[in-house]
Amino acid sequence: MAIEQMIIALIMLLAASLFSEPVAQWLRLPHTLLLVFIGFIGSELVLLAGYDTGLRADTFQHLVVFVFLPILIFEAAFAINAQALIRLLLPIMSLAIIGVLLTTAVIGAALYYAIGHPQGFPWSSALLAGVLLAATDPVAVVTQLKSLGAPERLAIMLEGESLFNDATAIVLFSVLLLIASGGSQMNASDALLEFLRVFLGGAAIGAVIGLVGVWIMHKLVSFPQRAQLTLLLAYGSFSAAEMWLHVSGVMAVLICGLLVGNLSQRQTEGASFRTQQPSLHERLHQLWGLLGYLANGLLFLLMGITITLNMFTERYLAMMIGIFAILLARGLSIPFSLAIARLIRGPKITLQEQRIMHWGGLRGAITLVLALSLPTSIEGWWTIQSIAYGVVIFTLLVQAPSMPWLLRKSGLNRKK
Amino acid sequence: MAIEQMIIALIMLLAASLFSEPVAQWLRLPHTLLLVFIGFIGSELVLLAGYDTGLRADTFQHLVVFVFLPILIFEAAFAINAQALIRLLLPIMSLAIIGVLLTTAVIGAALYYAIGHPQGFPWSSALLAGVLLAATDPVAVVTQLKSLGAPERLAIMLEGESLFNDATAIVLFSVLLLIASGGSQMNASDALLEFLRVFLGGAAIGAVIGLVGVWIMHKLVSFPQRAQLTLLLAYGSFSAAEMWLHVSGVMAVLICGLLVGNLSQRQTEGASFRTQQPSLHERLHQLWGLLGYLANGLLFLLMGITITLNMFTERYLAMMIGIFAILLARGLSIPFSLAIARLIRGPKITLQEQRIMHWGGLRGAITLVLALSLPTSIEGWWTIQSIAYGVVIFTLLVQAPSMPWLLRKSGLNRKK
Repeated sequence: MAIEQMIIALIMLLAASLFSEPVAQWLRLPHTLLLVFIGFIGSELVLLAGYDTGLRADTFQHLVVFVFLPILIFEAAFAINAQALIRLLLPIMSLAIIGVLLTTAVIGAALYYAIGHPQGFPWSSALLAGVLLAATDPVAVVTQLKSLGAPERLAIMLEGESLFNDATAIVLFSVLLLIASGGSQMNASDALLEFLRVFLGGAAIGAVIGLVGVWIMHKLVSFPQRAQLTLLLAYGSFSAAEMWLHVSGVMAVLICGLLVGNLSQRQTEGASFRTQQPSLHERLHQLWGLLGYLANGLLFLLMGITITLNMFTERYLAMMIGIFAILLARGLSIPFSLAIARLIRGPKITLQEQRIMHWGGLRGAITLVLALSLPTSIEGWWTIQSIAYGVVIFTLLVQAPSMPWLLRKSGLNRKK
Repeated sequence: MAIEQMIIALIMLLAASLFSEPVAQWLRLPHTLLLVFIGFIGSELVLLAGYDTGLRADTFQHLVVFVFLPILIFEAAFAINAQALIRLLLPIMSLAIIGVLLTTAVIGAALYYAIGHPQGFPWSSALLAGVLLAATDPVAVVTQLKSLGAPERLAIMLEGESLFNDATAIVLFSVLLLIASGGSQMNASDALLEFLRVFLGGAAIGAVIGLVGVWIMHKLVSFPQRAQLTLLLAYGSFSAAEMWLHVSGVMAVLICGLLVGNLSQRQTEGASFRTQQPSLHERLHQLWGLLGYLANGLLFLLMGITITLNMFTERYLAMMIGIFAILLARGLSIPFSLAIARLIRGPKITLQEQRIMHWGGLRGAITLVLALSLPTSIEGWWTIQSIAYGVVIFTLLVQAPSMPWLLRKSGLNRKK
């Protein structure tokens, strides 16, 4: 793609994103849903005009993984309150590890048996669909929870679960992809070892880079320098892990972002208290919020561009099975994961809270990153992408708008 | 260039830029000079290692024009204080229009006669070199002036002159390029008409887009939305002017940035006064400062990458003629332009102030943008690029570090 085309694409994205917010508020829908619609209409109009943009599915694969993914993960990790996270670490990690494995298995089994098409849709493809639907997206729901005055720990649990299940889902996805693309004949214990190597290796390199980053951060006093450092840390930790050490880039960015976001905060706040200036940390937070917002918007726009009408006419059954499967899987994995956490001294999460967590488990950015990065050589890749798009649209169109109603019904909208 | 390579290049840039600041402070040199050095050493090491990056001079041409230029111009226009600018508008516009024409002519003539090589270095090439050396860069000097307590109007005059001479130099450059590349046989009055069409056409589209932008800006209340709007305005006004209407994109961005930066400010400040929050305008200012800082750093790094040792061994004479020519040209154009402004009721600028303006006329980002965007089909393009690089290095290595000394000697470092 030539530079001029990229600039025009950027202008289109910015215009669509700016336009979608007020219209979405008026329609009381998530603005990301409107971006999907704009992307879809735009790409269909371009097709009707007979103009070939030269864009193909595989144009996006590297872009979403190497450009957007580090931004999304670093932003989420940088922004999260680690102290609140640690208090709820047991249920969160149980949801993010046991929950993801269980969700993947349940969705995979439901798709495999319900689609019942062993040639075109083997186990490996069903499990790939399962894992890319296991990553939840808290953005839309957490905003609602906060504005409706839901208990704070609900928001933290959804945010923390999403942060870590992004990482486990992506690592599991890469292991399953290795198996599905026939590159390796692994047995279960090999796969588990590979999972652990990639997962823990990524965390280790992220911790090292993050601690060095915190140390350098304290030496830098200007906003441009700190902003550059965070960009360097986000892309540096991801690339070092992914391209150089072949471990999980997402885990590396996640741990690095958590450390930098939480350990460099206190010192800066003291300084800002003295100077009465907006703290450097707050400004970094705003910068990353903006980057995350743009990357998120671009992902939903890309989803709209790659969606086609015959996904709905030819794959509507698979989509409906997918929607049924995610609701079933989350309905099983939440009580099970929380019960395990409770066994090892985790806090008690009430049934009402579990119901909110169940319905609040939207699918979004990471599901899209994985669906867009799916190699077209995978059997049934188009079915997987159709299911992913169908599920994302369902969670945005049905689950998100009905959350306020569910919160009021559960009586959880007052407690602070 | 593949996405992975772009990410690695970004990581390198960020690391080099972070590293260069403290080292430059220690050496008391502009950090941009260090970036040139890092870029040069880095590219030579890559060459020695026998690795071909696939980067060629023409890889950068569109990048610097379509990606960096709108950022640099919008940032400068957005940040400038229009009220202070208007009080000094007469001398600034005289310097930016009459001064640029005179500077171009003097440098062109000096190069043409001193190089004295009519086959390889015709008039058109000499004038191209003249015009790309007519754009001044105030960044390094204005920081010094402020920290040393020089009169405020000196800083405003240097900033304002640079903002507008960027635009006139770039428009003049494009007209001369049309002539030099043999695309058109223009006489002087055709060239003047073309200059006016491009210059005023760009200003008009910039004014329209800028006023619409201010109107939309007042309707947006969140930082991400306003940030997106400014990005949209910067790239939108540049692209609409350049690709669609074929008038000056730089003039369009400049006028648009001036309007948005100055007309949307007041209303926001009132709001921030009430809420005690850092104003949205201040945050936008920081965001654009960061973008400008990164674009500027990348340009000097690119200069370092494209510089070669035989530029100095084979073109040192041309470089020295160039350095002599810019000092002579600015020595003539400043008193002449200011005298013309004085004739039509401009303020009196003292001789000491003129001396500071003369020595403070560094060459930087815009000279590099134009030198890097020079088509290799132009006769003597390599000589032009060598002269530009030699002059930029001279102004950074000699003029910038000696400014504090000159200010003290002129007794201008105390008056506030």
